[in-house]
Amino acid sequence: MARPLITLLTDFGLKDSYVAEMKGVILGICPNADIIDISHEVDKFNVRMGAYVLASASRFFPKGAINVAVVDPGVGTRRRGLCIETARGFCVGPDNGLLALAARKEGIESVHVINNRKFMLLSVSNTFHGRDVFAPVAAHLANGIKPSDLGPQTRRMVVPRFARVVRDKNKVVGEVIHVDSFGNTVTNITEKDIRTRVGKRKFKIGVNEVELKFCKAYGEVQAGEPLALIGSHGFLEIAVSQGDASKVFELKNGEKIAVYLE
Amino acid sequence: MARPLITLLTDFGLKDSYVAEMKGVILGICPNADIIDISHEVDKFNVRMGAYVLASASRFFPKGAINVAVVDPGVGTRRRGLCIETARGFCVGPDNGLLALAARKEGIESVHVINNRKFMLLSVSNTFHGRDVFAPVAAHLANGIKPSDLGPQTRRMVVPRFARVVRDKNKVVGEVIHVDSFGNTVTNITEKDIRTRVGKRKFKIGVNEVELKFCKAYGEVQAGEPLALIGSHGFLEIAVSQGDASKVFELKNGEKIAVYLE
Amino acid sequence: MARPLITLLTDFGLKDSYVAEMKGVILGICPNADIIDISHEVDKFNVRMGAYVLASASRFFPKGAINVAVVDPGVGTRRRGLCIETARGFCVGPDNGLLALAARKEGIESVHVINNRKFMLLSVSNTFHGRDVFAPVAAHLANGIKPSDLGPQTRRMVVPRFARVVRDKNKVVGEVIHVDSFGNTVTNITEKDIRTRVGKRKFKIGVNEVELKFCKAYGEVQAGEPLALIGSHGFLEIAVSQGDASKVFELKNGEKIAVYLE
Repeated sequence: MARPLITLLTDFGLKDSYVAEMKGVILGICPNADIIDISHEVDKFNVRMGAYVLASASRFFPKGAINVAVVDPGVGTRRRGLCIETARGFCVGPDNGLLALAARKEGIESVHVINNRKFMLLSVSNTFHGRDVFAPVAAHLANGIKPSDLGPQTRRMVVPRFARVVRDKNKVVGEVIHVDSFGNTVTNITEKDIRTRVGKRKFKIGVNEVELKFCKAYGEVQAGEPLALIGSHGFLEIAVSQGDASKVFELKNGEKIAVYLE
Repeated sequence: MARPLITLLTDFGLKDSYVAEMKGVILGICPNADIIDISHEVDKFNVRMGAYVLASASRFFPKGAINVAVVDPGVGTRRRGLCIETARGFCVGPDNGLLALAARKEGIESVHVINNRKFMLLSVSNTFHGRDVFAPVAAHLANGIKPSDLGPQTRRMVVPRFARVVRDKNKVVGEVIHVDSFGNTVTNITEKDIRTRVGKRKFKIGVNEVELKFCKAYGEVQAGEPLALIGSHGFLEIAVSQGDASKVFELKNGEKIAVYLE
Repeated sequence: MARPLITLLTDFGLKDSYVAEMKGVILGICPNADIIDISHEVDKFNVRMGAYVLASASRFFPKGAINVAVVDPGVGTRRRGLCIETARGFCVGPDNGLLALAARKEGIESVHVINNRKFMLLSVSNTFHGRDVFAPVAAHLANGIKPSDLGPQTRRMVVPRFARVVRDKNKVVGEVIHVDSFGNTVTNITEKDIRTRVGKRKFKIGVNEVELKFCKAYGEVQAGEPLALIGSHGFLEIAVSQGDASKVFELKNGEKIAVYLE
């Protein structure tokens, strides 16, 4: 039989013992858990980046996975902890927007506030709820408790705001929402925006007045050449073959990207 | 039934194959082992930092865990290898102080020198005892051998020296013992030092002539504001909310930190 | 019974969700798989480095291990995907030389092209075959399919070219093939080159006109002193005790290293 699956996403980095402490707590409560890291190198305190990375990964895990995410500048203040049940599994973490993108994509079934101390460590610090609250809650969920055991249901939750794509007659304008470790810049313009609106019309993608070739794969152009393509999550992406587009074009999160129709 | 649990801590980094080689060796001997990384980004050759990170994490793992730690500038010289049995499990690694803090915290029951070649790889290099000695020893312990099978008992072991906290009538002086990846600076002044000595008297914490607010959580002050608090391991910590205290105050390991009583 | 073992090596880094997506896909197909990371910090697009790191690690894993490796600048172009069966297990990844060193070391038994879409994700992107092709193929191999189920057998494969060692009467000349995270520079001169050719004759190893002491262990010289030794994979290595030889001697991949016989 498959072991219960718990995924972890944090901004803790891998130098300190924080992530290991969470894993130790989980294995103490649910020794059979299979723990998989999504990322611990989310930029510090960057809830939006964490939300994006979590939403990118979560749908590839099997049904029943329990996703624990902790990017938590408000730890120890009045921000609430949430357990969201979705059509695929659970998302556990602070109510600051971190869980919202993944949970919505998977289909939210219920949201519960976490306040039952029975499912937390005996002593809860004010600075590390990843270890003292969210890790034990996830392990207890893996052991079979119900979200309603954790606390009252709620209808509100914080949702991060990403810029909307603006669709004009002659252009589609979106923005960079993630720069990956290759320097590929992912925008919020979807494959659908390109296919349905742009259709078979010719178009060009303008970045710093350079016109980009629209490709299917990075290797379609020579190493060092720029290109645009639909990335592996279905978003328009600006890239440089075997290079770093974010450096070449000085692109960072929030930068506007326009697709011009001809 | 729970799988035997082996934790790993090294200064090997994650770029090279060294950590994976240790895991391969372990799984070759004990295919059922559950291997959890504590950290592989201990600063190179920094035995004190390794000892601190190991001691921070080890008590959160379930009983029976076998902790393998390798920060080992003396590999291949006369420095001994040790297997320490504690009240919670085992610590395996070089006798250079790396294991001592964690082992003492957990309660030392016996210390054995590792010299029985039967439990090492057939060919032992002079440069990589993590793979050739400590990984196989841990896997054999997971399979049920006794520490006394590994070699003779010993009464000596190297213990790292950390500065003592000096407690005056009007102040408590400690020092920075760890800077985490957020830039939070952890001191050796304990929660007890603050609670019992400082009590209900007013006090201020001086760092570079700035007086710090004593808080319960990072989020109690505005982003960018400095604070002091008791961190999640029970030590006084200097932090900047959503910022990097080690940069703002130019604090590094060994720096003196004073708490002034009024 | 032991769980099927799948190892992963990529240049994806650990910041993004890419590695986690591969793991999610694997666990969706083979929930019982034990997934071990070899490295995800291979220098971006550096197939030779990936080949070296994979070949260093693979022989330490138990028989039957399925090694998935993805350093793949040609993803989405005509480059083929391969499944190589070896005397120890399987190597799965792009046909660009990445798998060749490890596979040859382990003993190649057959090479199959991967083109059966039945064992890939339903929708295969042009940019991420690690997730859409190689991860599911590895999971299906773990479930017991045969390499011949994946596609036709082939006799050709890309093999990376490393410089040959030149053996003169009075010297042996090789080059740096890997700089590890300590700054130790590994050459392609083998222990055998040293033992058989150099034998008991005195010799010196010249690097930037500095003569190096030939040692057995890093700790044989003082911290900061340079040395040469046979590293843990059987190659001549230039190191600095508790220091960074690649910085001290400005050595990088491809740099010539000579051993002079007296």
